[in-house]
Amino acid sequence: MRTNLQIIAFAAIFLFAFRVPAQTVDPIFPKGELSTTKNHTGSIWLNELNIGDSTFDSSIAVATYGPGAKLDWHIHPGGQVLLITEGTGYYQERGKPVKIVHKGDVIKCAPGVEHWHGAVPNSGFTYIAVTPTQKGKTVWLEPVSEKDYNSLK
Amino acid sequence: MRTNLQIIAFAAIFLFAFRVPAQTVDPIFPKGELSTTKNHTGSIWLNELNIGDSTFDSSIAVATYGPGAKLDWHIHPGGQVLLITEGTGYYQERGKPVKIVHKGDVIKCAPGVEHWHGAVPNSGFTYIAVTPTQKGKTVWLEPVSEKDYNSLK
Repeated sequence: MRTNLQIIAFAAIFLFAFRVPAQTVDPIFPKGELSTTKNHTGSIWLNELNIGDSTFDSSIAVATYGPGAKLDWHIHPGGQVLLITEGTGYYQERGKPVKIVHKGDVIKCAPGVEHWHGAVPNSGFTYIAVTPTQKGKTVWLEPVSEKDYNSLK
Repeated sequence: MRTNLQIIAFAAIFLFAFRVPAQTVDPIFPKGELSTTKNHTGSIWLNELNIGDSTFDSSIAVATYGPGAKLDWHIHPGGQVLLITEGTGYYQERGKPVKIVHKGDVIKCAPGVEHWHGAVPNSGFTYIAVTPTQKGKTVWLEPVSEKDYNSLK
């Protein structure tokens, strides 16, 4: 009987070891470099897949947020599309309620709109950002307040 | 002894059943609709994530190819960036050798360049295509010959 229990325990350990939970699957694209800019709080990694130029307008970049990490409020003069590829985050436009966004969601942020995005407190968050560059660089505003960050209803 | 073997067999079946092989992980974005256009051979599914317009120039779409499926030769007047998210495919520009491309690769196709892409014979292939639309629609050319499709060296 003890031997059977040992085999069951061994099998259980194997099952656990070989399972691939959805959140630890290897990312499609490398995380890239840890950002050292001052326009965010928490850890954010950036991998520039395509640099926008006069031939191909849009920058394409992967951004990976640690739990709780968030960008400051900002504006994209040419707008931005976010393709959420992993985890769960918050997205808020000025004057609107914060909303929760998940893997598989697509967010279209219009040119000139003040907004912020970040990871929820208990999950990382990864997206591919497609950002036209020829209408100007991102305009950075103030950090997100704790009140705004915790305002999900 | 027989009982032990039964337990081991049972554990092995469980191990197999609960493993999540890399290629069967749920896609991030739905496959979308099976294409019924005449500019490809084999099965290709399309999911338009963003329609390009005057505010946000680029179309963003997920394309999923069954094994062996391929587009005809074509030209993008505004160029195109392909972000390979799953599987293995071929990419060839006119006058150059065919090359093999994998999950995690980024392909930048310049405006006006004649090219084709498709899945290899024994694997599916998925990418996110970012395609500027304001310089004109895709120009379709002839189907890819068997000789070109099988020309990897």
